[in-house]
Amino acid sequence: MNYPNGIKKNYKISTSNRGMTLEHDINETNLYYRNKNIAVIYKKPTPITINKVDYKNRKDAVITEAHFIIPSTTDYNGIYKGKYIDFEAKETRKNYFPLVNIHNHQIEHLKKIRKCGGIGFIIVRFVLENETYLLEIDKLENFLDNNNRKSIPKEYFIQNGYLVKEGYNPYLDYLKIIDIIKERYNEEILEEK
Amino acid sequence: MNYPNGIKKNYKISTSNRGMTLEHDINETNLYYRNKNIAVIYKKPTPITINKVDYKNRKDAVITEAHFIIPSTTDYNGIYKGKYIDFEAKETRKNYFPLVNIHNHQIEHLKKIRKCGGIGFIIVRFVLENETYLLEIDKLENFLDNNNRKSIPKEYFIQNGYLVKEGYNPYLDYLKIIDIIKERYNEEILEEK
Repeated sequence: MNYPNGIKKNYKISTSNRGMTLEHDINETNLYYRNKNIAVIYKKPTPITINKVDYKNRKDAVITEAHFIIPSTTDYNGIYKGKYIDFEAKETRKNYFPLVNIHNHQIEHLKKIRKCGGIGFIIVRFVLENETYLLEIDKLENFLDNNNRKSIPKEYFIQNGYLVKEGYNPYLDYLKIIDIIKERYNEEILEEK
Repeated sequence: MNYPNGIKKNYKISTSNRGMTLEHDINETNLYYRNKNIAVIYKKPTPITINKVDYKNRKDAVITEAHFIIPSTTDYNGIYKGKYIDFEAKETRKNYFPLVNIHNHQIEHLKKIRKCGGIGFIIVRFVLENETYLLEIDKLENFLDNNNRKSIPKEYFIQNGYLVKEGYNPYLDYLKIIDIIKERYNEEILEEK
């Protein structure tokens, strides 16, 4: 749409990144991490099964029938300071996190990652308050073991997770929190010895 | 096709896994590793861009137009004994490995993984001889830095890589080789200290 000269739509640039999705913010953050050689973390492609492909043009095959399939793993994984990182990211418009948003096998996957020595977690954004929390798989597991609820109250994230502060570059510096978690893991290993 | 009674086609069951693709063998091997809690390594979904989705049925959305896109990373990644693992797997029917089979940004990706402390490599199967080699990114990089060839001769894999022996369960026990590589990395770290 063209506006008459002098009239500018959305003139004020929003100071926060409001309106952007969590996925966008994480992808941009990961791009920043990769460009700065801080970490190599990617979002996996959407899992689908392909039924029909039209090869009429050799260079540009077109998928004409495909179906979404339930993912067996999480959306994001990669490496940071030698550590394997694995997580799922979700948004909610409630003031609690409905557990239907995360599949059981994704939780099992994150538990396995933890057992193998990796760092597994979920990132949940409470859209209305625009607050984003990181919750380790251990804490998620702990909640599930001790509750029959179908959702996790936001309070649980505040008390057991970490608030991921929003910034400009990177948008969501969640690896800062991973530094704290790594430090704690190292201390636990030292204590065990 | 039906054969008259008594005549059996392909009666002898092949003792090796000949005829199975490298992708099949790796996927089965990874499944074995996961089931035995040895490692958590998955093949990533095929990267596509989705253009049209038909939502006529709420439960079963059908993708009616999508395109393949060039992958930015490799096909496989995961965690083994706390280490981040990342690799690409390719088959060739030649007695050399044509470099068109691997994208430049996949090589750059593997180099980054190595710099971050992960283990990056390629697995190449020479289909006609049914021999499968694992070649570390360092050795691949070394070849590319010192050659202008558009392919890597099989000889280079024999001398600089590791033959991955075929078995029954798992099919391709490539983590045995990762144990050797990990050991060498640890020695290098000790020497540096």
